[in-house]
Amino acid sequence: MFGSMFSTPEATARTGDDAWLQAMLDFESALAAAQFEVGIVPAGAAADIAAHCRAAEFDTAAIGERAASSATPVIALVKDLTALVGPDSRPHVHKGATSQDVIDTATMLVTRDVLELVLGDLREAARECARLVDEHRDTVLVARSLLQQALPTTFGLRCAGWLTALDEVIAGLERVPLAVQFGGAAGTLASLGGDGPAVLARLAERLGLAEPVLPWHTDRTRIAELAGALGAVSGVLGKIALDVELHAQTEVGELTEGKPGGSSAMPHKQNPAMSVLITAATHRVPGLVATLLSAMPQAYERAAGAWQSEWEPLTELLRLTAGAASRARELLSGLRVHPERMAANLSLTRGLVLAENAATRLAGALGRTEAQELVAELCRRTVDRGSTLRAELLAEPRVRAVLSEQDVIAATSASDHLGAASDFIDRALAAHTELEER
Amino acid sequence: MFGSMFSTPEATARTGDDAWLQAMLDFESALAAAQFEVGIVPAGAAADIAAHCRAAEFDTAAIGERAASSATPVIALVKDLTALVGPDSRPHVHKGATSQDVIDTATMLVTRDVLELVLGDLREAARECARLVDEHRDTVLVARSLLQQALPTTFGLRCAGWLTALDEVIAGLERVPLAVQFGGAAGTLASLGGDGPAVLARLAERLGLAEPVLPWHTDRTRIAELAGALGAVSGVLGKIALDVELHAQTEVGELTEGKPGGSSAMPHKQNPAMSVLITAATHRVPGLVATLLSAMPQAYERAAGAWQSEWEPLTELLRLTAGAASRARELLSGLRVHPERMAANLSLTRGLVLAENAATRLAGALGRTEAQELVAELCRRTVDRGSTLRAELLAEPRVRAVLSEQDVIAATSASDHLGAASDFIDRALAAHTELEER
Amino acid sequence: MFGSMFSTPEATARTGDDAWLQAMLDFESALAAAQFEVGIVPAGAAADIAAHCRAAEFDTAAIGERAASSATPVIALVKDLTALVGPDSRPHVHKGATSQDVIDTATMLVTRDVLELVLGDLREAARECARLVDEHRDTVLVARSLLQQALPTTFGLRCAGWLTALDEVIAGLERVPLAVQFGGAAGTLASLGGDGPAVLARLAERLGLAEPVLPWHTDRTRIAELAGALGAVSGVLGKIALDVELHAQTEVGELTEGKPGGSSAMPHKQNPAMSVLITAATHRVPGLVATLLSAMPQAYERAAGAWQSEWEPLTELLRLTAGAASRARELLSGLRVHPERMAANLSLTRGLVLAENAATRLAGALGRTEAQELVAELCRRTVDRGSTLRAELLAEPRVRAVLSEQDVIAATSASDHLGAASDFIDRALAAHTELEER
Amino acid sequence: MFGSMFSTPEATARTGDDAWLQAMLDFESALAAAQFEVGIVPAGAAADIAAHCRAAEFDTAAIGERAASSATPVIALVKDLTALVGPDSRPHVHKGATSQDVIDTATMLVTRDVLELVLGDLREAARECARLVDEHRDTVLVARSLLQQALPTTFGLRCAGWLTALDEVIAGLERVPLAVQFGGAAGTLASLGGDGPAVLARLAERLGLAEPVLPWHTDRTRIAELAGALGAVSGVLGKIALDVELHAQTEVGELTEGKPGGSSAMPHKQNPAMSVLITAATHRVPGLVATLLSAMPQAYERAAGAWQSEWEPLTELLRLTAGAASRARELLSGLRVHPERMAANLSLTRGLVLAENAATRLAGALGRTEAQELVAELCRRTVDRGSTLRAELLAEPRVRAVLSEQDVIAATSASDHLGAASDFIDRALAAHTELEER
Repeated sequence: MFGSMFSTPEATARTGDDAWLQAMLDFESALAAAQFEVGIVPAGAAADIAAHCRAAEFDTAAIGERAASSATPVIALVKDLTALVGPDSRPHVHKGATSQDVIDTATMLVTRDVLELVLGDLREAARECARLVDEHRDTVLVARSLLQQALPTTFGLRCAGWLTALDEVIAGLERVPLAVQFGGAAGTLASLGGDGPAVLARLAERLGLAEPVLPWHTDRTRIAELAGALGAVSGVLGKIALDVELHAQTEVGELTEGKPGGSSAMPHKQNPAMSVLITAATHRVPGLVATLLSAMPQAYERAAGAWQSEWEPLTELLRLTAGAASRARELLSGLRVHPERMAANLSLTRGLVLAENAATRLAGALGRTEAQELVAELCRRTVDRGSTLRAELLAEPRVRAVLSEQDVIAATSASDHLGAASDFIDRALAAHTELEER
Repeated sequence: MFGSMFSTPEATARTGDDAWLQAMLDFESALAAAQFEVGIVPAGAAADIAAHCRAAEFDTAAIGERAASSATPVIALVKDLTALVGPDSRPHVHKGATSQDVIDTATMLVTRDVLELVLGDLREAARECARLVDEHRDTVLVARSLLQQALPTTFGLRCAGWLTALDEVIAGLERVPLAVQFGGAAGTLASLGGDGPAVLARLAERLGLAEPVLPWHTDRTRIAELAGALGAVSGVLGKIALDVELHAQTEVGELTEGKPGGSSAMPHKQNPAMSVLITAATHRVPGLVATLLSAMPQAYERAAGAWQSEWEPLTELLRLTAGAASRARELLSGLRVHPERMAANLSLTRGLVLAENAATRLAGALGRTEAQELVAELCRRTVDRGSTLRAELLAEPRVRAVLSEQDVIAATSASDHLGAASDFIDRALAAHTELEER
Repeated sequence: MFGSMFSTPEATARTGDDAWLQAMLDFESALAAAQFEVGIVPAGAAADIAAHCRAAEFDTAAIGERAASSATPVIALVKDLTALVGPDSRPHVHKGATSQDVIDTATMLVTRDVLELVLGDLREAARECARLVDEHRDTVLVARSLLQQALPTTFGLRCAGWLTALDEVIAGLERVPLAVQFGGAAGTLASLGGDGPAVLARLAERLGLAEPVLPWHTDRTRIAELAGALGAVSGVLGKIALDVELHAQTEVGELTEGKPGGSSAMPHKQNPAMSVLITAATHRVPGLVATLLSAMPQAYERAAGAWQSEWEPLTELLRLTAGAASRARELLSGLRVHPERMAANLSLTRGLVLAENAATRLAGALGRTEAQELVAELCRRTVDRGSTLRAELLAEPRVRAVLSEQDVIAATSASDHLGAASDFIDRALAAHTELEER
Repeated sequence: MFGSMFSTPEATARTGDDAWLQAMLDFESALAAAQFEVGIVPAGAAADIAAHCRAAEFDTAAIGERAASSATPVIALVKDLTALVGPDSRPHVHKGATSQDVIDTATMLVTRDVLELVLGDLREAARECARLVDEHRDTVLVARSLLQQALPTTFGLRCAGWLTALDEVIAGLERVPLAVQFGGAAGTLASLGGDGPAVLARLAERLGLAEPVLPWHTDRTRIAELAGALGAVSGVLGKIALDVELHAQTEVGELTEGKPGGSSAMPHKQNPAMSVLITAATHRVPGLVATLLSAMPQAYERAAGAWQSEWEPLTELLRLTAGAASRARELLSGLRVHPERMAANLSLTRGLVLAENAATRLAGALGRTEAQELVAELCRRTVDRGSTLRAELLAEPRVRAVLSEQDVIAATSASDHLGAASDFIDRALAAHTELEER
């Protein structure tokens, strides 16, 4: 009931019991095939095994129940697979492999299938950001620091910040190493005699996974790097959602979600429901990453608990990141931007957010210190009188001695104080294009 | 497939979609009944609503799917419930309540149902511990610090340590406050006019939950205290499992699980499968507790993401703790203790673990410093010659000048150096009995 | 440089090297005194040891440097203390104790000293809250859910929420068990023969700490409960700070800190600096709690790493909580409330936040469904026309057929839709008074 | 007192207040120089500023105290620096910069200085691993899964596992992006007009940091990637330490640290003190990484608390990783290996760890199923009779019908069942050499 709020149907399917089971069977099937290629499994057995490596032939629930007594589902799975194949094929099932070979390789396969979704959504989200950057290059917005209005910026630059962050985590996720696991009980592939490495190489190739230098049963750097990359993705999506939630506040009103959540009792509410779900999902990610990192110290050749603690948190991490990425894409594609509210909010302080600009303009003639002191005085006057900074500047002889009315108007126009916003936008778009074309 | 390894069928059922849904419906039903008592809902409507508040009448999957657009499953649930009841009852469904009232109260009800399981298993585990304490009061074991053999202790005292820890966390869990949630959209129960507090009181009574001072929509101390208590439970169970794993090492061999996991390829293996599953489950708990604690700062009257991030982690925390508690009970009840291996391991250092005792015995006659130096010298001799400390003490004139052969034998007997082990055991058993009788 | 932002000088002093050292020495001194009482240490030795148990006589830096080789500072400390006392006293230094006895007991003493500060600040913060509740019982504020305006409430009720949460965590912190640690190398007090328990009892009494059932070297429930209680405190303080930051937004403007942080370049900024520091400090707490919880599974009689991992995080947790509590007290005592901005924000939606109330008022005459549909229509009209809900109600014949002008004005007045706010305030204040008087 | 146990003097110095202060001053100095190059600061002012940007001229404690009121130490720092330079230089101090520019850039500089240490130690640790791999290529060891003896492997292959993991995290750490931060209050460099990007480029070049696409005030992917990489490093070091602790157990005795910690009262103890400190340090890392990841969602253009929460945890993360890396290097360089204990432990099960090999040898003649059943029967016989598997194989007619005495002896020799151990070692060494030469 809660699950569908924090993930997507596709990601849920690709991380479900059937997907895990199929991934394990894909390992067994590819293993037999690889061993056939190396010449240690007959063609018939490899084909027989492959023919039965279909999740539909197995009872996942029953395998799960039998898993507890040995702390692994693989023993039951291999038993069932062995029973399904013909008598001659039986000795060739799971040959040379250990439970962890199956589960770790399945983890990589499941991960690959979910990362495909995540990367697809992230890339689309980045494209939507790029569109917003382009559309709002000149939409002036007040920048806020510590939740206080600071200086003008543009909504385009804000979106460029989202874009660059998305591009960075996409690149990070693309680098995540996915490798086959195959080492046998002791990591030596002992029961295959000298054939182990050849089987390993063919197995990796068949599954489309990298061939590792060594079996990595208790070297969990792959899992750590995957977790770290997903953690970064999640943090970036959480930042975007947080910004939308803040901009969508009734009192700010600068953004609205495409399909805000409603309330029958409170007709005025435009709940940023998608952002809320992204926030909720991403909020849970750091704890999962920490769990996976703290599972890294794994004893000897197979851990007693640490490895087993990875399975569900990694699944959860994939589900949540996929959910957040999908919603972020949807959020960005439907986002409604309200430039008029941005303009109105920029005027809330009646020009004070441009005080720095005014001081800079005056500094040339008056010196920086005197200019700053004068502007500070005029700011106080603005507040006391409820006037605007522009009016106070225009009314002040010391200002008018050095600045024309035109100058004062420019100095108190947000568009005069955007610095490198447009340059930065160009840089972000160029970097994005480069990533897209790579 | 993985789930059944880390939880139990009962806990899984009590935290499943149907259980959550029923808990939400229990809220709606009790709310109508409470409002009938207060006189703001007609008897017929209350009865009609109660009659339809059965999970079986609802489609949880469909509710889940519809939940995403508003970031809560309650809107869909209330809509479906409203459709089920008669037209006259409709205005009385969910009256005065907000989504969070339903979900938070359901959280408390689900939690109560799972805590019943957890406490039952913990109490039984404690009883098994008390039995082991009793049985192994005099079973000598070498204490180990930093995984190095230190001094003698008894297995009874070790089990007393487990017992006391279990008793402490049972007491902690019993203190966890479970309260109804009912405040309406703004926490004021505004739409009930002046009747809110009376409804609140009756609602709490009907559901068997405490009545809080205030609606606690954004005061998450209850959740934090629950999480903290479950975290402590989990840590204690993890400690017991870790000890069993270490004692069960092939090289230590002092404990075996009742039904160790086997391996067809490695017939000598006696995998501590239950301990491994407890370790794996409890390993994941700190990250979940951190997630719940970090969700405490919730904005204004309803959080935008932090609250929603609690739902699945809390469910998971309950599932994992229930799984670990159940397996710990089973582990302790079936634990096979090998006193002969404990004795053999105690002799591994050929008496060096009793050096402190020998020095203490000699200190009266020789002074502490000289006694310690002499014993240190004899220890080195023991190591160099591959002899025993007892033999070296018996062979050393400076020792024999002050200690008889009997004295030396006593000084190098583990049973002579158990200090307050037996007293401590009595204290632990007495405290346990007191808790049981409370 | 950063430290002073996230803690206080007092808490920093009470958790500093000298405080830790003195706490360890207090253990050694009390141990000798307790052993004198039991008759196993001469009066002269106990006095001699007590006389030298002063941190100023030791070189903490040197002790720290020597600590690494044995993974504990106690060996160096005991060596230095032994060297300071007279030759006859030397055999009586640290008698029967192990490193962990010293450090764990010192942990409890340091904790007690910091909790005194924390509780003092929390109690004062709660009093300030109670004052705000009282002052702002009738200050109308718009409640916000998911950062969207919802319904009216009062600032007094908001503060009552803070107050109740503070009271709850104060009670939780007061329950935290602080007990002496004394078990010797194996937890048996073996080297004291039968005198161990008597020494333990007197030691606890002298130090003003509880006497535990057993030595708790590898039973870390005390640490877990302390961590959990501090985690809850921190979460409550973080919630208060988050609310202040949100209320202090330029666009909301309902609260200002007593001494907001300024900016020379941006004279209009009123940074909620104290709230920011509380947020930053409390944000770090869940990770520390998780670290302490994950250290609970400690092997055998002394952990190889898990115990040692507690020392700095617990110190940090105490420092941060003390810092946050102190700043929260200051924040609440200086908080500037702007009722006029609260009133203005309440009007932002031109009455829509009272739609629920209007519908309730109309439901008696029109039936709930028709009333809600009518009000929804008038809300849309309000938005479309840029009018107010009150005006639309007054202009609508179906409304005027059943409600007088007076009725409509009341129905669209926030003060008419506060439900049990005032009752709830009374409950919170009463509960607070009860806690204060306990 | 505790700090020196978990870090090193060098890392402590490079993360201390003075180091942070100097890094901030390096930013200010480089900024003035960059602005001189761009032509917006006079040469004299740039030189004057550079001359005073020395930590020794500042009072860090006083800056720390003044930091709290504005939630940043930079305002006080800039004030003090401005006071130190001549009047003409004053307008050019900190020109165009915001607090976060200073602190984020200083973070990158401090990080770079610590990573230099960490990478140096990791590379040296990897070299020591490579030496151990080489020396122990043929040292037979029993592999252990779930802490149970499994099959033979070699200590060389175990060390190859450590080596490959170290190489992987070294490569990961080398990839961590360190970039300058410079965006001014709104991320637009508004006060520099059009000169911002040119200053940014020169500033990056001067400081030897990358030039980012955009100011990254609220895009924290750099911090997340750094944290993730350090988390992976820490996990690998923790794994090595855990293995050493387990191998060093009294009952296992296969490894001893170069300088084990001693105990006066327990002369036989050889505490793995260094491993314990590594374990303790690395245990704390996942919580810190989670804290940094959960700080990623930062509001608008500057976060209210999340950013500020990064400072101390990141410092701590650097300190702990540096401490663990340094001790791991020392641990590996001094590690004492006991091949005779490895051999003895391999014999503990009297040949059962070679049952798989025997079954494989028999499978050719008997078929896999019959061979496995026969060996399983002989294993039971071995246990029942307290004999050895070799003796039972030799005594069994069904075996002798197909295997000669020579064959049986080979089949029960560990060196006959090492599979690809040696090949894998070659792969690990080759990959290491490649990394070293890169």
